[in-house]
Amino acid sequence: MKFKNRLSLLTLILVLSAVNLIAQEKVDLEMMYRIKTEGIRNSQIQDLSFHLTDFLGPRLSGSTNLRNARNWTADKFRDWGLSNVRIDSYGEFGRGWNVKKSYIAMKEPYYAQVIGYPKAWTDGTNGPIDSEVMLLEITSEEDFAKYRGKLKGKVVITPANLPNNPAFEAEAKRLTDQELEDRKAINIGGGGGRYTPEMLAQLRAQRELDQKLTAFLLEEEVGLRLTGTRGSFGTVFHTRAGSYSKEVKPSIPEIEIASEHHGRIYRLLKNGKKVQIEAEVEVEWLDDDYNGYNVLAEIPGTDKALKPELVMLGAHLDSWHAGTGANDNASGVAVMMEAIRILKTLDFQPKRTIRIAIWGEEEQGLFGSRGYVQKYVADRNSKEKKAEWDRISAYFNLDNGSGKIRGIYLEGNDQLVPVFEKWFEPFHDMGAKTITLRNTGSTDHVAFDAVGVPGFQFIQDPIDYGKGYHTNMDLYERMQISDMTQAAVIIAAMVYNTAQRDEKLPRKPWN
Amino acid sequence: MKFKNRLSLLTLILVLSAVNLIAQEKVDLEMMYRIKTEGIRNSQIQDLSFHLTDFLGPRLSGSTNLRNARNWTADKFRDWGLSNVRIDSYGEFGRGWNVKKSYIAMKEPYYAQVIGYPKAWTDGTNGPIDSEVMLLEITSEEDFAKYRGKLKGKVVITPANLPNNPAFEAEAKRLTDQELEDRKAINIGGGGGRYTPEMLAQLRAQRELDQKLTAFLLEEEVGLRLTGTRGSFGTVFHTRAGSYSKEVKPSIPEIEIASEHHGRIYRLLKNGKKVQIEAEVEVEWLDDDYNGYNVLAEIPGTDKALKPELVMLGAHLDSWHAGTGANDNASGVAVMMEAIRILKTLDFQPKRTIRIAIWGEEEQGLFGSRGYVQKYVADRNSKEKKAEWDRISAYFNLDNGSGKIRGIYLEGNDQLVPVFEKWFEPFHDMGAKTITLRNTGSTDHVAFDAVGVPGFQFIQDPIDYGKGYHTNMDLYERMQISDMTQAAVIIAAMVYNTAQRDEKLPRKPWN
Repeated sequence: MKFKNRLSLLTLILVLSAVNLIAQEKVDLEMMYRIKTEGIRNSQIQDLSFHLTDFLGPRLSGSTNLRNARNWTADKFRDWGLSNVRIDSYGEFGRGWNVKKSYIAMKEPYYAQVIGYPKAWTDGTNGPIDSEVMLLEITSEEDFAKYRGKLKGKVVITPANLPNNPAFEAEAKRLTDQELEDRKAINIGGGGGRYTPEMLAQLRAQRELDQKLTAFLLEEEVGLRLTGTRGSFGTVFHTRAGSYSKEVKPSIPEIEIASEHHGRIYRLLKNGKKVQIEAEVEVEWLDDDYNGYNVLAEIPGTDKALKPELVMLGAHLDSWHAGTGANDNASGVAVMMEAIRILKTLDFQPKRTIRIAIWGEEEQGLFGSRGYVQKYVADRNSKEKKAEWDRISAYFNLDNGSGKIRGIYLEGNDQLVPVFEKWFEPFHDMGAKTITLRNTGSTDHVAFDAVGVPGFQFIQDPIDYGKGYHTNMDLYERMQISDMTQAAVIIAAMVYNTAQRDEKLPRKPWN
Repeated sequence: MKFKNRLSLLTLILVLSAVNLIAQEKVDLEMMYRIKTEGIRNSQIQDLSFHLTDFLGPRLSGSTNLRNARNWTADKFRDWGLSNVRIDSYGEFGRGWNVKKSYIAMKEPYYAQVIGYPKAWTDGTNGPIDSEVMLLEITSEEDFAKYRGKLKGKVVITPANLPNNPAFEAEAKRLTDQELEDRKAINIGGGGGRYTPEMLAQLRAQRELDQKLTAFLLEEEVGLRLTGTRGSFGTVFHTRAGSYSKEVKPSIPEIEIASEHHGRIYRLLKNGKKVQIEAEVEVEWLDDDYNGYNVLAEIPGTDKALKPELVMLGAHLDSWHAGTGANDNASGVAVMMEAIRILKTLDFQPKRTIRIAIWGEEEQGLFGSRGYVQKYVADRNSKEKKAEWDRISAYFNLDNGSGKIRGIYLEGNDQLVPVFEKWFEPFHDMGAKTITLRNTGSTDHVAFDAVGVPGFQFIQDPIDYGKGYHTNMDLYERMQISDMTQAAVIIAAMVYNTAQRDEKLPRKPWN
């Protein structure tokens, strides 16, 4: 071969370099085999799932159960021989709150059980309550006058528009090849939001009226408020909350009840029938520690130059309070714990340090992960960088239920496509192969992405997730053990690849 | 046209007669229009549905609510001007039983609500109970010894194999044209039942062991038994029963709990954790009236010769006790009531008498309809015919939920095919057109079919029926009001056609 001029030679060099750049993304297939084998043959997913749900119970932010769960998780990390195990406060959260008793039933026109649970951080009833139910129909502030002076100690209910449509579509599904392919397409949003200014004004007015109603009910010393909420067939969503602020504010006891039970009471009252409710709610407030915490643990890096660098993996430990937060997010925690257990068991020499972070207080606004980022990584407002900003190669998160991993969201970072295309190759036959540039929101990876550190959430099959998360029925039975086994293996592999890669993962511009 | 011989002429006459026979199945399209218009414009389905469920409550056989419901139904018939309204006893049923209070929660290892309801006709707890849960693992009679003397006043639980698989298929569906077509095909069963002799022996042995266990628990004075049962996501099936026999037998208080809550307690105990339950069940037994009853009412026939003849329509009023028996079978009752209301409102002159029968005690074995048949129609064992055997042209039943009517089961009677093909023509555009010779079981039409009187159940769309019937969630929200409106119109038309037809409907041979 003979080069006609220097330009041709230069072209060839450039082409070869490009080929080289792609070729340099190497995967250690022996390690992939070892990870798969350990993860599948010796899986501890089932045991972790049982302990995180049935055993530890609901793990509401600030609750006794969450404190127990943090300790249990840290102990498990210590048992496994992880390093630097610590329960790390990122700052203040608020008051703790435990349910000690919750009973509600209809006594008139006939006895019937009501499925319902106290709204988080609301007060108890101060003993049993036995009262007629008053229907409050309030569309403006003027309507308060109709009820003033009549509500003391009473049970009240407000109308709600709770759909109860038959399920003509399956609740659980596997993403099809076509759906996965579609998920790669980037939709560039046009102008205009979801709401018109008129709709926004209306929403704002409704919110203000709701706040005034809350104040009015407190002033009137209402005994118990019943609220209808999303869900059907005995599944009840429990998400909205009273105040956990350390500034103690008394609140009306409030129970969120099943949509059908709400509907029954509402229809009876609307048709002029008398409804009598008996109920008892006892709660306990904890004011001994207002801090929020994360549980951290490590497999230390061994490469002299690279060991200060970090690969992180994590999931949130807190949950809502009426179920046991199985799919949201004991499943994520179990998978991440299992992933680091697999890596620890394989006893290899990671170049970078591998750190697991089990977050607290995610449900109130990613407080745990954001608190960690604020403390160690960067201030997302001032853009001030802190010690770990430069050192974290990537953060991997799992928080979309217990369905299998089908791919990964790259949060728009084109440079990562060839990297993850290669890393996912050994997992195509486990159903995971879709690399999408799309963003996904609402999980702890956002805290990292917001400060320019690569943070990832995976594409997962929606197995009973939408139906059960944040409900009283988010229980052990929701967890797909074999799907989670697959997820732990893939995440262990991603963490391994990130730990051993010559370079940190390429970043999007930030600052 | 010239006939070659008398045989040809005879053939022609026979052919013409046959044509005539088919042609004689006439439908009064003006009446069809009037029925549709009244049923759709002035439908009372929604109001009937509300009263039969929310207002009257669960209607367990023998309960106070069922008594109230019978009276309410009879009053409604009187309001509508129906004749011969009566609450008719067919004989003895057994004891009445009402739940006055039902509370259960887990106290240890943490407080958590348990969704559950007393098993029908079991005793109460005699005040609050607060006890550790004992897991009873019993595979043979010898295992009783392990627990003897240790169970007094305790809460016990037995293992259960309760599947909690994700729902990869939709719970609600519309039957497709293909599925309806398939439903016409008759499968002629081959030899052999579902069970081998070995399986039957095993089942029998299990049943005997279960009975011995029940006796053992009573002897040991167990405080409360927890039973896992079918259903998931907060929906709990409540079908099995204690004894309603008037021979009073004490029983162990027993609560059927949600499969996930059963699973949690079972797994905790199996893993050596302590579980503490607090519970209270208060029940009330009624021993003032052991009879079973049906509610009957009529639009009298006006044709001198035909008015002793009857067209009957009906559905059962009783239900299981944890929901309000909405789809099983307030929906059937509401549709049948609406159908006779439409006919009464149209104020026509029925040739035959139209009688509605709202059955009691169906859930324990079609007692109401069988009792009626035994009393008035025929003895299905001795084949003795009674007064109404010859007089009933047909009985129409609805008891497969609130889904739309898509066709009718002819119980093998070929002679009815041309009749119903014709009668359904005006309802093809409402989705009802499938005439199948197939049998269908488990509803009150069987009581009539068993004595050779034409009895029919319709083909219905399965809208949330399989998921919700016999559960705590069989509530008003399950009822598909527009589907029921369609059903009432079609049934009114079928009853009208039967009442006005020259002949009674042709029968299968019986005796």
